[in-house]
Amino acid sequence: MAPQYAPSLRSRLAPLLLLLQIGFIVIFGFYTEIDDRVTTDDGTSFKNFYPDFQDVNVMVLLGFGFSFTFLVRYGFSGTGFNLLVAAMATQWAIVLNGIESWYYRGKIWINLRSLIVAEMCTVSALISIGTVLGKTNPVHLILIALLEVSGFVLNNWILQTFLTVRPLNSIMLLHIFGAFFGLMLMWILYREGSEKPFEKEKFDCKTGIFSMLGTVFLWMFWPTFNSVLVDNYPPGRKLEAMSGTYLALAVSAVTTAAVSMLSSPKGKLNPVHMQSCILAGGVAIGVSMPVVHHPWEAMTIGFTAAVVSTIGHRYLKRHMVLSFQCHDTCAVLSTHGLPGLLGWVAHFLLIKDFDDHTTAIRFAVFHICTLLLTLGLSLSMGIITGVLLKWNFWRSPQDRKCFDDQAFWEVRNQKEKTCLSEDIE
Amino acid sequence: MAPQYAPSLRSRLAPLLLLLQIGFIVIFGFYTEIDDRVTTDDGTSFKNFYPDFQDVNVMVLLGFGFSFTFLVRYGFSGTGFNLLVAAMATQWAIVLNGIESWYYRGKIWINLRSLIVAEMCTVSALISIGTVLGKTNPVHLILIALLEVSGFVLNNWILQTFLTVRPLNSIMLLHIFGAFFGLMLMWILYREGSEKPFEKEKFDCKTGIFSMLGTVFLWMFWPTFNSVLVDNYPPGRKLEAMSGTYLALAVSAVTTAAVSMLSSPKGKLNPVHMQSCILAGGVAIGVSMPVVHHPWEAMTIGFTAAVVSTIGHRYLKRHMVLSFQCHDTCAVLSTHGLPGLLGWVAHFLLIKDFDDHTTAIRFAVFHICTLLLTLGLSLSMGIITGVLLKWNFWRSPQDRKCFDDQAFWEVRNQKEKTCLSEDIE
Amino acid sequence: MAPQYAPSLRSRLAPLLLLLQIGFIVIFGFYTEIDDRVTTDDGTSFKNFYPDFQDVNVMVLLGFGFSFTFLVRYGFSGTGFNLLVAAMATQWAIVLNGIESWYYRGKIWINLRSLIVAEMCTVSALISIGTVLGKTNPVHLILIALLEVSGFVLNNWILQTFLTVRPLNSIMLLHIFGAFFGLMLMWILYREGSEKPFEKEKFDCKTGIFSMLGTVFLWMFWPTFNSVLVDNYPPGRKLEAMSGTYLALAVSAVTTAAVSMLSSPKGKLNPVHMQSCILAGGVAIGVSMPVVHHPWEAMTIGFTAAVVSTIGHRYLKRHMVLSFQCHDTCAVLSTHGLPGLLGWVAHFLLIKDFDDHTTAIRFAVFHICTLLLTLGLSLSMGIITGVLLKWNFWRSPQDRKCFDDQAFWEVRNQKEKTCLSEDIE
Repeated sequence: MAPQYAPSLRSRLAPLLLLLQIGFIVIFGFYTEIDDRVTTDDGTSFKNFYPDFQDVNVMVLLGFGFSFTFLVRYGFSGTGFNLLVAAMATQWAIVLNGIESWYYRGKIWINLRSLIVAEMCTVSALISIGTVLGKTNPVHLILIALLEVSGFVLNNWILQTFLTVRPLNSIMLLHIFGAFFGLMLMWILYREGSEKPFEKEKFDCKTGIFSMLGTVFLWMFWPTFNSVLVDNYPPGRKLEAMSGTYLALAVSAVTTAAVSMLSSPKGKLNPVHMQSCILAGGVAIGVSMPVVHHPWEAMTIGFTAAVVSTIGHRYLKRHMVLSFQCHDTCAVLSTHGLPGLLGWVAHFLLIKDFDDHTTAIRFAVFHICTLLLTLGLSLSMGIITGVLLKWNFWRSPQDRKCFDDQAFWEVRNQKEKTCLSEDIE
Repeated sequence: MAPQYAPSLRSRLAPLLLLLQIGFIVIFGFYTEIDDRVTTDDGTSFKNFYPDFQDVNVMVLLGFGFSFTFLVRYGFSGTGFNLLVAAMATQWAIVLNGIESWYYRGKIWINLRSLIVAEMCTVSALISIGTVLGKTNPVHLILIALLEVSGFVLNNWILQTFLTVRPLNSIMLLHIFGAFFGLMLMWILYREGSEKPFEKEKFDCKTGIFSMLGTVFLWMFWPTFNSVLVDNYPPGRKLEAMSGTYLALAVSAVTTAAVSMLSSPKGKLNPVHMQSCILAGGVAIGVSMPVVHHPWEAMTIGFTAAVVSTIGHRYLKRHMVLSFQCHDTCAVLSTHGLPGLLGWVAHFLLIKDFDDHTTAIRFAVFHICTLLLTLGLSLSMGIITGVLLKWNFWRSPQDRKCFDDQAFWEVRNQKEKTCLSEDIE
Repeated sequence: MAPQYAPSLRSRLAPLLLLLQIGFIVIFGFYTEIDDRVTTDDGTSFKNFYPDFQDVNVMVLLGFGFSFTFLVRYGFSGTGFNLLVAAMATQWAIVLNGIESWYYRGKIWINLRSLIVAEMCTVSALISIGTVLGKTNPVHLILIALLEVSGFVLNNWILQTFLTVRPLNSIMLLHIFGAFFGLMLMWILYREGSEKPFEKEKFDCKTGIFSMLGTVFLWMFWPTFNSVLVDNYPPGRKLEAMSGTYLALAVSAVTTAAVSMLSSPKGKLNPVHMQSCILAGGVAIGVSMPVVHHPWEAMTIGFTAAVVSTIGHRYLKRHMVLSFQCHDTCAVLSTHGLPGLLGWVAHFLLIKDFDDHTTAIRFAVFHICTLLLTLGLSLSMGIITGVLLKWNFWRSPQDRKCFDDQAFWEVRNQKEKTCLSEDIE
């Protein structure tokens, strides 16, 4: 039976959204400014970035939104909440990323670069959300997104300030930060009885194709995602980043298919592998971007990432539920977590151009500290967020309402699969 | 039972299409020319526009096409007729927009700018079509598109010639023109008995996701739609337009969700709101574009537009049917009409840089005349078109064949939801 | 009942994929280099191409992938195998296209142009695959793709070396090469009993919309596909190519609708026509591109191509099965084959600028030789490939497992249309 009333929405989510949104408008009113200091000839720098910005935008809204639609009864929530969270998190990220600029220059500057960076922070939050999708209500999702973005921006600031990590490198740690933040979330929000699948956590051959649509968008535009913030210096650097990512993804797709068949008892392909693990190459190459210069390096990273991710998905997911009580809806750990760590290792192994031994050791220490700091911050922020969400005030959905659009949307009568338009409008 | 024969198609639509298409080819043969007067360095001006052109193209074909798929049995018609109408209307708009150029220079020039302007005229027609979708046959849709585009181009010409409105500003009135043209259409084409929903006017959780796909495409590329024709003078103007639209849409999405929950008896989200009202911010900011310079202005307009649109959708749609006998399939009035008017008001309120009192009054008079002329022309063209379509010659579909693909497409056996390929091909 | 084990996958496909992929990595490791010889000002040439590259990428992965989803039970295979084949074929095409550069300069250069050309070779293979989709296993598809790409690259090399055909012109023959290669494939791989439709070769109103999505992507980005490799000399040439394709496609869509209705016994539209024949204009104009300078020429070609393609689809497809024992799953012959030939004829008829009679005859001979060579090579490569695939070693799927995802994917219980996530993951 459809729940008659959604307690978490009207009295929790609506005021929260209105409050935050009005707050953002006020902050933007006082502290932001469109950054029109473009280079001399009209609009060049604007034009150079705009198609890339749209590619990233497509990844955030369509890519993540539709890859969340694989659950049979959770399509509206997957796409709708993704859009809602993205709209909130991007505004929040613009504000947080601009604090430094505000401190020194009095205004937060809004330009295409700041929008792209903000969307990347949002991606980090969407990765975390993938772990708890379906087992939370949208108030939870908004809170996760805001806290995760805060943590991630803080992490960026610490890495850039104290370890002089370059902005691009610290931003690309978004996969690791998002995945381990999510790991803590799912561990704390674990529900008794989740070792059995939820009643409505189902997969369907039609919704599977929607999900494939999201994956294909992510897969296609990942080269943009990895190359958009790369400075084209020395010339050709951007092309290296872009074509490296493209090749890593191609290898990743082929390898995922092979490993998925080899590890299947029936020797068949697993649709979920083809929808998440094929992205592993893009994740790994993103994290190791600064040191990848040759196509074969990119391809080898893509190959290894796909093997790790597919094996991880095949054997780890079930194990995580039973042994560590972590129920990972979108298999974020094997899609973003492990390949992210692999990318970090590849960055470590592939760097070569050291003047002497001291520089090499210095780099190694810095590189390890970068990872430890990121892991530490993401895990602790994840725990804090998880504990906050446990608070009953937010009205977690009951087990039998998990993975169900009816809990939050005005739809009825899912069994007959149609609903009179009268009910909808 | 499926209708055995579609009288409106073979003897009405096919000759009409062939006649018009051959006519267009002849007109293009005698009067058009590719405009190759590009700037010195090879192709710069072409390249600068091309990705934007494709964004607009995606909005017209995918955005509108898939946002028309929400009706359970009307998916092929939604996407297919949208493509058909867009292909016709764009050719017609190229011809009409080029008349002035033809008059002075002997040729209609075709370049990326003229294609983009033509597609915007098409958008105006697609908005009108949203009001009568499902209750008309494709002959009607083609006639509506041609007449609506003619009216809209006439309106642009009048505004630009007699009121010296700038081209961009008059084109952006497409939302108002389209919505009120559609309002008259649905009023005249009202069918007795429509106060009850049509038998097949149903909504489904799968088709709802297709519709969400269309919405997300519209939402993502709206910044391009609003900024593509903006001259980048003073430098940064284009960035202002683009980032203003982006922020207005983000605020619009968040606000729509909050208002939808607050106004729902069960406190839940309405999927239709998340598919149409979230676009209200883009509509309103488009109309008020020339005076919006600060992010907070854009965000406030987005906020207000979402409130007006969502409230309008919740309470107005039913009321329109019962009191005014207007059955609005895609809720065009609350998605494009009201936010468009709001944008006009915002334009009125936000303009500041007047030299003296006289200029201000002069502007006010001109601004009001612009609206009145647009409303007058769109309403009267709507009435003329509606009366023409009432003519029985066009064979309106019967009530029980409304909202049904089977009336126009070679599909069979929708109840079992599959059809042998033999029947299809 | 679902097959319990897929013999063709684990012991055939997985080793083949791994072997090929590792081989590619080794080849790329020794012989490729990122081509960073970009023009002076940073990244201009990169930026100019990148959005076009992404458009082509979208066509290959989304366009073809989703236009293969129209079969009810074959959605995962349509999109998944398309991605797999594209990932393999593009790598292989990069290698083959680079052999000449490797021979003269020691390295295969990878840049955006080489990636785009490689993706176009992939398109040629995807066209061939459309003919045998559903009746083959993925090992077959990989082999077809590799052999088809080899043949196509060989054809390009022969045409460019011995007949001095310009690269763009020889690449655009991909439609003809792919279609006739596929024709031989389906002739040799014909299964007894295929005159009746396969048990699972069904069409559905939901999957039809996925397929429409693929078509719309192809339709929208076709202008990019045809114009991306055109040199912008004389200035405006690129705009000619792009707007010519756009107009040809628009005319093609309108004409297809008209002819589809006129040729239908019930006077209705055929959804398959609106999903394949509307692309005929783009195919024909692509092949005749070098000689099309005026909009009306493009539009007339689009008109004729749509008529030929729709009539061909309506009457030829059934006839091909009964008389020639060719079962064409995606109607490739009428979508790519006939319009491609028409484009060749148009190229022949429209060329004008000859100095004297001798040049004209010389051109005619060369032009006819180009076609004959392409047809000869594609038909003979098709026969070789077909015979190779007949070999029982590759374990063709049985008739009753054709057009069924269950033969290759870990999905279960299609009748109930859901599958517990436990089974999937």
